[in-house]
Amino acid sequence: MTMAAHLNHSMATKAPAAKNSTAEKLLVAAGELMIERNSVEISLADIAQKSGVNAALVKYHFGNKDGLLLALLERDAANEMTHLDFLLAQPLSPTTKMKLHIAGIIKAYHQFPYLNRLIHYLLHGLNRDTADEVTKFFVGPLLDFHRRLLAEGVASGDFREVDPVLFYTTLIGACDHLFFGRQTMMRAAGIGPVTDEVCRSYVAHIEKIVLGGLLTNRARQPSAAGS
Amino acid sequence: MTMAAHLNHSMATKAPAAKNSTAEKLLVAAGELMIERNSVEISLADIAQKSGVNAALVKYHFGNKDGLLLALLERDAANEMTHLDFLLAQPLSPTTKMKLHIAGIIKAYHQFPYLNRLIHYLLHGLNRDTADEVTKFFVGPLLDFHRRLLAEGVASGDFREVDPVLFYTTLIGACDHLFFGRQTMMRAAGIGPVTDEVCRSYVAHIEKIVLGGLLTNRARQPSAAGS
Repeated sequence: MTMAAHLNHSMATKAPAAKNSTAEKLLVAAGELMIERNSVEISLADIAQKSGVNAALVKYHFGNKDGLLLALLERDAANEMTHLDFLLAQPLSPTTKMKLHIAGIIKAYHQFPYLNRLIHYLLHGLNRDTADEVTKFFVGPLLDFHRRLLAEGVASGDFREVDPVLFYTTLIGACDHLFFGRQTMMRAAGIGPVTDEVCRSYVAHIEKIVLGGLLTNRARQPSAAGS
Repeated sequence: MTMAAHLNHSMATKAPAAKNSTAEKLLVAAGELMIERNSVEISLADIAQKSGVNAALVKYHFGNKDGLLLALLERDAANEMTHLDFLLAQPLSPTTKMKLHIAGIIKAYHQFPYLNRLIHYLLHGLNRDTADEVTKFFVGPLLDFHRRLLAEGVASGDFREVDPVLFYTTLIGACDHLFFGRQTMMRAAGIGPVTDEVCRSYVAHIEKIVLGGLLTNRARQPSAAGS
């Protein structure tokens, strides 16, 4: 069930499908505004003006502003989230699946520069229903994916046993933080912006650190039995 | 230079020292309010009422609300931040120093449940000067500590070479995330709160994953040269 479907389920007063040009226009405008302003604090009036769509139609299509922001999150994260089951089913080693997953998360965050703040904003807003929707769409499926992939790796002898909830916290926290504090670090600590090159380096770094710590000694040194 | 000193430097209009009972009362009230409400969104009026101190004195002691919140962050993080140089100077292995550091960060976050959100709030607020103060007090010294400890570990043959900025991002992101998303995870994914026991487990987990990935093969298997 997609998050938009969830939303329809929980907000019975709004239109059934977001898949039409007016709704799409509103999402495009919201995403562009967030990039232009480097902030997720945008108003319905701004979205309406930029999209050329009457603000009243936001209510019709998305229920309210949170509904629009949830739909935007779903649109942007859909690629990575719907990919999880597919990835698990591939005839690849657990290590390769984990590497592809790490690269996928970093890519999604990088492609939509506001994605990380949007998730924070929706999770920590005053509306508990909104936060619950984000958890159901984002946290739950990711955690479930980690649980299954970790079990697969332990069974194959590639991964050491770790607590999936703690592993989720470590991996998602590490990925998220590249995009969270970077702007502040840039100003005060003389560190550059998150470029394509930084993303590639960080994917390699997380593989080295997180996968390095996760792998069994056997999986870590496949060709060297003695030191 | 402490952050309060920084603050005095950059906000010349306020009183020179926060070390007096009125200022302390305001900080205690602010911290207690954040715990009671499980939010860092508290007003000066609320702080004044709870502390029994006239709201005008906030301006006298801290310049403004951001100044008060920065002083609260300094008070709560001071233990861990002032400890960094001391820790580096100890006759301990780089691995032991890193373990103590990880435990120290988790302990500070756990002891002051609002600390993590307070840092996010101040870093992402509209006031750039405030964000810069947080970076100078928090991000800069931590990054410098990581830089020096990582170099020490590489020199001793215990750590693999890693980029300090990327390592900082991984470690602080992983620690921070335990406290960031937990409440939402609790509700929607059936996961319990961050107890003392969870903190201990997470410290052990981060040691296993992050240190596991950081250590050289030699340091990882000190007693087993083969296999």
